[in-house]
Amino acid sequence: MSNYPEKVYLNNEILDCKNAKVSVFDRGFLFGDGIYEVMAKVNGRFFHGKKHLDRLAECLRKIHIDFDMVTLPDKINELLKASDLDKEDCLIYIQVTRGVAPRKHSFPVDIQPTFMMYASPFKLPEINKNNIRISTLTDYRWHRCDIKMISLLGNVMANNQAFKQEAHEAVFVRNGSITEGSHSNIFFVKDRIVYTHPANEHILNGITRQITIQLCKDLDIEIKEEAILKKDIIYMDEAFLTGTTTQVASIKKIDDYQFYTHDNTGFITRKLQEAFLTLKR
Amino acid sequence: MSNYPEKVYLNNEILDCKNAKVSVFDRGFLFGDGIYEVMAKVNGRFFHGKKHLDRLAECLRKIHIDFDMVTLPDKINELLKASDLDKEDCLIYIQVTRGVAPRKHSFPVDIQPTFMMYASPFKLPEINKNNIRISTLTDYRWHRCDIKMISLLGNVMANNQAFKQEAHEAVFVRNGSITEGSHSNIFFVKDRIVYTHPANEHILNGITRQITIQLCKDLDIEIKEEAILKKDIIYMDEAFLTGTTTQVASIKKIDDYQFYTHDNTGFITRKLQEAFLTLKR
Repeated sequence: MSNYPEKVYLNNEILDCKNAKVSVFDRGFLFGDGIYEVMAKVNGRFFHGKKHLDRLAECLRKIHIDFDMVTLPDKINELLKASDLDKEDCLIYIQVTRGVAPRKHSFPVDIQPTFMMYASPFKLPEINKNNIRISTLTDYRWHRCDIKMISLLGNVMANNQAFKQEAHEAVFVRNGSITEGSHSNIFFVKDRIVYTHPANEHILNGITRQITIQLCKDLDIEIKEEAILKKDIIYMDEAFLTGTTTQVASIKKIDDYQFYTHDNTGFITRKLQEAFLTLKR
Repeated sequence: MSNYPEKVYLNNEILDCKNAKVSVFDRGFLFGDGIYEVMAKVNGRFFHGKKHLDRLAECLRKIHIDFDMVTLPDKINELLKASDLDKEDCLIYIQVTRGVAPRKHSFPVDIQPTFMMYASPFKLPEINKNNIRISTLTDYRWHRCDIKMISLLGNVMANNQAFKQEAHEAVFVRNGSITEGSHSNIFFVKDRIVYTHPANEHILNGITRQITIQLCKDLDIEIKEEAILKKDIIYMDEAFLTGTTTQVASIKKIDDYQFYTHDNTGFITRKLQEAFLTLKR
């Protein structure tokens, strides 16, 4: 069971968690009008931290929230010190909303964005040894999944449905094609070629997704950014998820289709898991 | 320019607006995980209040938030008294989120929903005399628009785009068909037959939409719940929007296509506006 962090950075102050409150007129609360980011500190450094902060900046630009990114690295360090996590592995959650204003759909002018951030102790396993079970469902989410927004009702509903079916993650199917998980990307392997959905408006271009594609190239594994049809899952040799906390996780089962028994992770998946591990050292 | 209300009902207390704050771990703030409702008090009574509360209950059921609706009418009365609006026309905004929990996609168990409500003085005009300008855009929202959720980033982005184009409202087009506005429904008239998109998962079945359909029947105006194609807008005689605050509003222009000049509201639209007015008396 996860717990609350001790400290929360809210706008310009670091508060005890229980005092970290926002106005009910915050557009994050009224409209889901904001962007978030999650990154990991591993072995004393932010794992691809720049990529995460760049994506946060890019998503904020996409929805026209004008936020000062320059002071963010200092604030992260301040938070880690206040949270006694400056020497520990941890996860950092960052959220920026459009700010506080009387409720009206169009964007208010001249308001300050709300900035919220916290860190939680989190030790990533060297390799994610879970054998993941996936439940698929129709991708009923919006068509701008490239924006890492906090309007996540579609994702949490899907994730909860998977959870009730004793699956670890929900994976979406749009027009017959597998797109992505509710908070992860998905890859397939067939005849030693790795496949994943292209980075368009129907998926979030995950940082771990990008790292995995680069790893394939470094390892001379052929990688194609092509969607796999749901009906073709049964012809695939392997499948795996990627994500900041998921890392590279082997998929054992999608709906009723079982890829392997016991802990028999596929060859390419294992190779990528091991290569991913070396990046963290 | 709209302003903040004086009082906010938050969970079990009525607070001054500036003290109405929620935890940053409220799932409304983290995930847009909640439902909202807006209703009007007109001439001393809630205009179709039961329909609004029923829809709130139905939407909460759809996303599995277990909220006690029984005490809500009393709370509304309490709020109106505290807000000095018990004798005034006003709008009531109600929002219920899944509650406060450490951030995790799947639904937490045994938490209390967060309830938030406020009332603002608001005098609906007898008839909405605006001549509405519409800007259309591709419907990139999710495929469960029947749920009146607070994950509204798609809607606010669309509305803001319309606003920048000096239009009053954004209207969505999905697969060539006109669906609805960012916070209203849309109707067309052709050869004295009224058309509106069927109430499926691609629109919110607005209360004013339902009332308008009933008014057509009462007035022996033929009504068809059929979507109009964007390319067929130029063949329509009239168009209008419906909504709780919009009431029945005549559309003068959609993108570059102008329905009429000056204040020349169409015959059927005017008839429905007048019939709608009688309902409020």
